[in-house]
Amino acid sequence: MEKFEINILGCGAALPTPKHLSSVQVVNVREKLFMLDCAEGTQMALRRSHINFTHLRAIFLTHLHGDHVFGLIGLLSTLRLLGRLQSLHVYGPQDLQCIFQPQIDYFCAESPFEILLHEIDTKKPQLIYEDRSVEISTLPLSHRVPCCGYLFREKPTLPHIRRDAIDYYQIPLSQINNIKAGMDWTMPDGTVIPHQRLTTPPDPVRSYAYCTDTAFRPQLADLLQGVTCLYHEATFTSEHALLAKNTHHSTATQAAEIAKDAQVGKLMLGHFSSRYKSEEMLLQEAQRIFPNTLLANDGMKVTL
Amino acid sequence: MEKFEINILGCGAALPTPKHLSSVQVVNVREKLFMLDCAEGTQMALRRSHINFTHLRAIFLTHLHGDHVFGLIGLLSTLRLLGRLQSLHVYGPQDLQCIFQPQIDYFCAESPFEILLHEIDTKKPQLIYEDRSVEISTLPLSHRVPCCGYLFREKPTLPHIRRDAIDYYQIPLSQINNIKAGMDWTMPDGTVIPHQRLTTPPDPVRSYAYCTDTAFRPQLADLLQGVTCLYHEATFTSEHALLAKNTHHSTATQAAEIAKDAQVGKLMLGHFSSRYKSEEMLLQEAQRIFPNTLLANDGMKVTL
Repeated sequence: MEKFEINILGCGAALPTPKHLSSVQVVNVREKLFMLDCAEGTQMALRRSHINFTHLRAIFLTHLHGDHVFGLIGLLSTLRLLGRLQSLHVYGPQDLQCIFQPQIDYFCAESPFEILLHEIDTKKPQLIYEDRSVEISTLPLSHRVPCCGYLFREKPTLPHIRRDAIDYYQIPLSQINNIKAGMDWTMPDGTVIPHQRLTTPPDPVRSYAYCTDTAFRPQLADLLQGVTCLYHEATFTSEHALLAKNTHHSTATQAAEIAKDAQVGKLMLGHFSSRYKSEEMLLQEAQRIFPNTLLANDGMKVTL
Repeated sequence: MEKFEINILGCGAALPTPKHLSSVQVVNVREKLFMLDCAEGTQMALRRSHINFTHLRAIFLTHLHGDHVFGLIGLLSTLRLLGRLQSLHVYGPQDLQCIFQPQIDYFCAESPFEILLHEIDTKKPQLIYEDRSVEISTLPLSHRVPCCGYLFREKPTLPHIRRDAIDYYQIPLSQINNIKAGMDWTMPDGTVIPHQRLTTPPDPVRSYAYCTDTAFRPQLADLLQGVTCLYHEATFTSEHALLAKNTHHSTATQAAEIAKDAQVGKLMLGHFSSRYKSEEMLLQEAQRIFPNTLLANDGMKVTL
């Protein structure tokens, strides 16, 4: 299967601790790298994880709270020093430009690559990025400031060629791409071999949804139906449900309810409040509702 | 002796690495904390070093290059979340306000404490901070942008009381502060005991100079005469002297020449280029000229 991997670089909430950086992840889809949020310390975490900076295609910011964006200017500045040439696209809510353009102009003045800031409307789901491998759409969230999650859905791949069948029917290699694309094969005697006999079905399409920060938002489940993996914030345990409500965050139970309603493949919890010495309580709470739940952790790699 | 301690939190150059954060230190003078520069990752380094955020009095920035300031907004934002009430003074060169005030207004909007940005003229040495324990002055440096170092000089302390002499002459405890301040003691029979006999001399006055980033600047030695400890940037070895010159940085040899001319107590090298796997070469180079040289390192504590 082609690579589809989530690298968790930070999964803490507002206050970074020696255990967790604040929010930042890198999604690797077929060796193209996409960053989700950009907490302070992102560039150091990239180095520790041996992630190749230069393969970074775009950065997607959920919202303009410090714990999701304070690493951006340092990362851009370092990419400049490393001599990046390829343009870099940064997506985020309104105010992205008025906040970051002055910093970029000052600190990355002679940048050899273009930094393009794209402000997005966080209120409606929309496709904002597409290439041959993946589509990335926004997911409206409910937070104290404009905020959206991101949904990665890989493009369908072609069926796999059955090497044994190709050999058996003595089909020239030059025809393989045509057969993958759906062409049947006609033998010299006129017999038609349907392409289904020459191939096995393509890999299932995988998807990843990144939902942080958000209050409990039941209607989110409609947009998340069947995603392979859902990362959902679980800042608090149910014991702190009122605090969650007041600060527009979710409890582990609420995250699990979304996962259950959306029938996702697995749920990953993150954005942990620094008040919890261990996140085991959050995990247990979520697993009561949605068993296939795991805890994110800095340095963790999840392969879909 | 009263505490005078330098905590090196980061001593790398422009590119932070897993080994070194960029520039940031905390100077502890009698439990008052002063920060020098504020690289990305400062708040995490403070936590790792168990330094108490709340004792932070002021932050002194040498210049507005990213590797010296990218941790500032994260630190201020976290102090806000921790509920700091005491005003915090931040000193730095021109443009400090136009760069940081908008960030502060946006990310620390409801800060319970006042953040005061002070722009200083880096071209002339001047006293910019003073309290009962310490005086802090600027040191003009030569870099690509306005830049100054900082000189900490503790205030003289009073002589130490000789407990044995106080007991011998049966002097009431209420008089100790007067004697420390220079009063002689008159015995009931009229004999005068000079205060020198009742005290031992005060601790010598200690000083610390922080000089980064700078090209070789021989006249700097005049301002550094006899400082207890000099931190001087040594971005490069002499092999890269031309690169040092072109980028307005110093070699280890040049740092040692300043230390020798100024007859400082000890020299600490820092701001190491990430190109060197080991800094041993820099140390050897400097020690040939000024033997009492040491290498800074992240997490190191130097007691004066």
